[in-house]
Order: sequence, then C-alpha cells, then structure tokens
Amino acid sequence: MSSEGAPRVERDGDTVRITMTRAPKRNALSRDHLEQLVTAFAEVGGTDATGIVLAGEGPVFSAGHDLGEVGGRALPEVRSLLQLCTELMRTIQDVPQVVVARVHALATAAGCQLVASCDLAVAAESAGFAAPGGKGGWFCHTPMVAIARNVGRKRAMEMALTGDVIDARTALEWGLVNRVVPDAELDAAVAELLGRATRGSRTSKGLGKQTLYAQLDRPEQDAYGIAVEVMAASSQLPGAREWTAAFLEKRRPVWTD
Amino acid sequence: MSSEGAPRVERDGDTVRITMTRAPKRNALSRDHLEQLVTAFAEVGGTDATGIVLAGEGPVFSAGHDLGEVGGRALPEVRSLLQLCTELMRTIQDVPQVVVARVHALATAAGCQLVASCDLAVAAESAGFAAPGGKGGWFCHTPMVAIARNVGRKRAMEMALTGDVIDARTALEWGLVNRVVPDAELDAAVAELLGRATRGSRTSKGLGKQTLYAQLDRPEQDAYGIAVEVMAASSQLPGAREWTAAFLEKRRPVWTD
Amino acid sequence: MSSEGAPRVERDGDTVRITMTRAPKRNALSRDHLEQLVTAFAEVGGTDATGIVLAGEGPVFSAGHDLGEVGGRALPEVRSLLQLCTELMRTIQDVPQVVVARVHALATAAGCQLVASCDLAVAAESAGFAAPGGKGGWFCHTPMVAIARNVGRKRAMEMALTGDVIDARTALEWGLVNRVVPDAELDAAVAELLGRATRGSRTSKGLGKQTLYAQLDRPEQDAYGIAVEVMAASSQLPGAREWTAAFLEKRRPVWTD
Repeated sequence: MSSEGAPRVERDGDTVRITMTRAPKRNALSRDHLEQLVTAFAEVGGTDATGIVLAGEGPVFSAGHDLGEVGGRALPEVRSLLQLCTELMRTIQDVPQVVVARVHALATAAGCQLVASCDLAVAAESAGFAAPGGKGGWFCHTPMVAIARNVGRKRAMEMALTGDVIDARTALEWGLVNRVVPDAELDAAVAELLGRATRGSRTSKGLGKQTLYAQLDRPEQDAYGIAVEVMAASSQLPGAREWTAAFLEKRRPVWTD
Repeated sequence: MSSEGAPRVERDGDTVRITMTRAPKRNALSRDHLEQLVTAFAEVGGTDATGIVLAGEGPVFSAGHDLGEVGGRALPEVRSLLQLCTELMRTIQDVPQVVVARVHALATAAGCQLVASCDLAVAAESAGFAAPGGKGGWFCHTPMVAIARNVGRKRAMEMALTGDVIDARTALEWGLVNRVVPDAELDAAVAELLGRATRGSRTSKGLGKQTLYAQLDRPEQDAYGIAVEVMAASSQLPGAREWTAAFLEKRRPVWTD
Repeated sequence: MSSEGAPRVERDGDTVRITMTRAPKRNALSRDHLEQLVTAFAEVGGTDATGIVLAGEGPVFSAGHDLGEVGGRALPEVRSLLQLCTELMRTIQDVPQVVVARVHALATAAGCQLVASCDLAVAAESAGFAAPGGKGGWFCHTPMVAIARNVGRKRAMEMALTGDVIDARTALEWGLVNRVVPDAELDAAVAELLGRATRGSRTSKGLGKQTLYAQLDRPEQDAYGIAVEVMAASSQLPGAREWTAAFLEKRRPVWTD
C-alpha cells in the first residue's frame, strides 16, 4: 500500500480531523486512498475522541472513484474496489464518534456518497453535489444507496438521471446537509455543530448513533424490536446511571464513559 | 394502578380529546401514566368516535419518560417500561380513529415520539421538539424510531446527536408536524384539520390508516402485496358499495359504517 | 380489448410521448385503459427510445379508477383490476427509459399514483394532486404505496386522510414533483429536464434506474448488496468501457449502447 497522499489525521482536543490531501487528484477515492481512509477512521474509532471531521484539501472535496482504476479492469477487481468503498461508508457509520463532513467544494459520485454517509454535514456556499455517472457510461449505483437515503425519491432520481450538480442551498432543502454557511465561516460552523453534537456520555452516544443506523429503513415494529432492547440494556451503563442519579440529586452529571 | 392524574377523556360530537393532566410532572410518561394512556386510547378505539385529539395541560406537552423511574432500576424493569411505551405508540397507530397531536408547548424524548407517532400533528408557534437523550447519558433510541420516520436522515441525526430543541417552524419544514399556527388559534386549527380528516366512511378510513402503517418502510412491491389485498377486500364493504352507488346515481353518499 | 380512446403514442427523436386521450372520462384508468397503457409502456420499453413523457388530454391529468367499474363487482374482479393497475406502475419503473409525468391539471387517486410512480414529474402551476378515497368510502390504499414513498409520513397521512387537493407548489415542496412552471412553459420544462436526464449510455442508465428502484426501501447494507454487484458487473459493459477509455484518452465519449 502506497502512503502517497495519505490522509492527514490531526487531533485537536476531543476532535480528530481527517483531511484528504490529494488535491491534484481531486481527492479521488483510489484503492490505496480508500484503504488509507478506512484505516484512519478505524484507528480514530478506537480512541477516546468524541468527534471526527472529514475534510478535503484543494479545489474539490472528492471526485469519487478514480476512473483510471476502473477502465479495462476485470469484474473481480472492480467488485473488490466497490466492496472496499462500501466498507469505508460502513466504517464511518460504525465508529462511535460523531462524524461531520466539512464540504468546502464539489463532492461528486462516491465523494457525494461520503457526504451522504457521514452522520452530519456542513457545506460552504460554494459547495456542490452530484452523482454524474448517470450522464456517462457507469451509473452511480452505490453512491445512490447513500444519497437516496438522504433526499426524497424524486430528488434522488433527478440527481441520478441528470448527473447535474445541485448547489449547497438545494442540498440543504433536500436534507443532504445540515448547514450551509459562507465559505469563510465553514470551520466555525463545523466546530459549533460538532460541539453541540458531542456533549454527554460518549458510550451512550456511540451506541445511539450505531443503533439509529441499525433501525433505519426497517418496518417500524422491527425497528422498535432493535431499539427497545438496546435502550433497556443501556439503562444499566454508567452514563444512564449517572444521568438519572444527577437528575434525582438535582446536580449536573459528570460523564465518565 | 394509581389513577393519580389520569388523562381526561372528553367526547365532543364525533371527537374525543385525551388530555394529559400531570402539569406539575410535565406530563411525564411514568408507568402508570403510560398504562392510563394505553387504556384511554384502546377504549376510545372501540367507540364510534371518528377522531382523537391528544393534548397536554401545563407548561410542557410531555417531557417523556420519568427519569426517576429509570434510575437504579434493573434491566427487566426498564425493558418492560419501554415495551409499555412502545405499546402506546402502536395503539395510537392501531386505533381506527384519526389521531391528531395538539402540541401547545415543548415535546421532548418520548413526548416528541408521541407527536411523531400520531397520524397528524398541529403545533402552536411556541411549541418545540427535541430528543435530548443524546446530550445526556441515555440515548433516545426508541423515540428516534418514530422521529426518524417523520424527518429526513440527516435531520434525525442532528436531533438525536445534539439533543437540542427545534422550533415549530423547523418541525413543519422537516415534516414532523402538519401545521403551525399562532398559539391562540391552536384549537381552531386542530378542529379544522380533524374535520377534514374525518369525512367519509369510518370503517374505510380506519382500515386505510392501519394499512398505510402496515405498508410503510417496506420495499414497494411488498407494500403493494399488502395494499392490493386490503383494497380489493374493502371494495366489498358497505362504504365502497355506497360510494360507487352514489357515484353512478349521481347523488351524495350516505355513510352507514 | 376495446381500442376506444387508446393512448396516443408519438415518437419525436429519442423521446416517445404517451398521451391519455379520454378527456370526456377524465382519463379514468378503466380496465381497458390500463391494459392499453401497460401495452404502450412495454412496447416503447423495447425500443431504442431514451425517454418517455406521460401526458393527458383534457381538463384532468387522470382521475384514477373508474368507479363505475368497481361498484357492485365481486372481489376477484376488483382484485384483478388492482393487480393490473399495479402492473402499470411496475412497468413504468421497469422500462429502461426515463419516464417523466407531464402534469398539466388535476391528478387524483390512481392518477396521482401515476405521477408518484414516474421517475420524474413536471407540473404546471394549475396542476393539483389528491388521494380522495379517504374522504369517501374506498380508501386509496394502493395509490398511497407510491405517494407515501415520495412525500414524508405526516404529509402522506394528511393527503390520505383528508383527501384534499394539494397545489403544485406544495407538491414541489413535499417532493412529489421535480419542477413547477407556468402552464405555458410546461412542454419546454419537460423537454429541458428530459434532455438532461437522457444523456450518456442508454444501457447504463436503464440499468441504473431499475437498480435504484430495486435498492430503495431496504436496509442500507441490503441495498449495498444489490448495488455493488450491479455496479461491478456493469463496469464490463460497453458504456463503462467507453467512458473510462475516453477519460484516460482525454476525449469525449461516444455512446454505442
């Protein structure tokens, strides 16, 4: 595995920023870049950080797969590349930290899928979002799994079929991002949202996020089957014990997990 | 079962209003309150009323579970409490009446879940909505089952992870409520929406509502498998007979069921 | 099968327009009309057209089922009618072409379901949308399968329970249509959107659309299970080969499939 252009991983307090640094390649998700990102997320996932910011350097947030790695390759090779890409999306949802996409510019194809797969997303006004495969020769099948679960069905179809870029305001209206701010305020807005999203018991929140993904997209009663068991079990953990004790003793809780 | 602060059940014409009256307890959903609410909904469900309004007295619509009933309790006890809470949500969706939440103030945690579980919801401008467990020590796992099925995924994650209150206008934009009106117009707006939602054959509508919940969250062809059978069978019921007869005879239908 | 009022099928370049011409019957979806529409979509589906516009003549886009065909009929007959209607919705999603609903006026019940089932929809400002069964005697069970998958849950319940008409702007906000334009600009807007939605490899796009429907409404990891396999396999098709070759050779792709 080449370490060329490995993502920069920087911890600042309880937050880790993972920055894609392959600006000349538009942060394309080549095989080694995907491997590096999976490793970075998995490693930070094992630390006591509470939040992760996914950022990109250069003129593009991420342009998705590197077409040079697909052209002329046999099916098993392409399939394993897509499995690896899916593993990255799953890892982002699986780590206990709150993951915020910091989208400063264009996010297309698997780059847009990254935004759709993060727990939260903050976009600069000059950001844009697209699933361009639909106007080319290789449809954005896997990106649309994540994108369609953020926006409505007709909007998903429009993005998938036209392949055109939607602007940040439209992405906000459609529910693909949580905030749109002037470019100069992007870091402040990310920090503000992440600050509010990382309060409380770390263990409780990690379990909460993971369980939310587990119950989505299922018939409501199936989802309750999952959520009731996890919520009952988690009532026995230190976070819930401390919260209820502090409530009864009319004091501020102190989180130890 | 204590009858302390039992919900007030009042019938006015074809509508029954179920009012939570535990204002000093912020209408917390303690075990006995949950039992009383399940009983109230089930009993009204068996009557010929066509609509139910769920309201709350005091400064808060409902603050959700009573943390005093969770702190220090063993897992089986907490689990049965959550099962009971889930039974209330299911009962609201299972009764044949149209259920409208009349949200005059803050609705948090399982209180917000109540709003999400009602068929329709009308909010006063001063209402607010939150899933605060995420910023504490006990994540709102079960409330998020209902809330996430009303709002988009990124918005659900924001509510769950930040725990912060969204205002009524935001709740309207996100699809958690159907109407937002000035506080003084709340009852009129509830009555107006409920009036329009309770026309026609009662049997047909009850079956319609129940079937809609049954088919949601399923792959589209599975949902059609349910809806086609119910719609075909219900064509043989008096409501459908009367509707088609009135259509052919160019007269107003008279509903007998 | 009567050919009375058969849909008009007209090809113009790569686009086929299928127009419902039963204006005096408000383009009701009677059994023979449903059969004609299924046949029309299936036949165009087998051609090399890239886009289909579904339009209606007269004062109404489509009023849904013909109640005269339901009144007094036995269950098996009604059931087969609903199966046929469901077959039309499935056929629209199954053909490889991009299907755009051109909604110039009111679309109700199964007529609204048609709009919800098309890939994309453009509405004139004077269009309206409703699921009126809820205020009658025969609930719109099957229309709500499609409509609820376009709009949010509370909005679906409001349409289903009140049966009232929502205007085109509301339909746009709720995600039921992609565009709303002044009546006089309807054809131009349909052509513009369809033009952008039909670029690229036809085979790739058809497979893309079909796979998107296949993966929707499923737990995310199940959806990836479908999308990864299709995307890997489709990397071997001429469209993907040409796209990646053109990318590497820095030239415009030429689509042959």
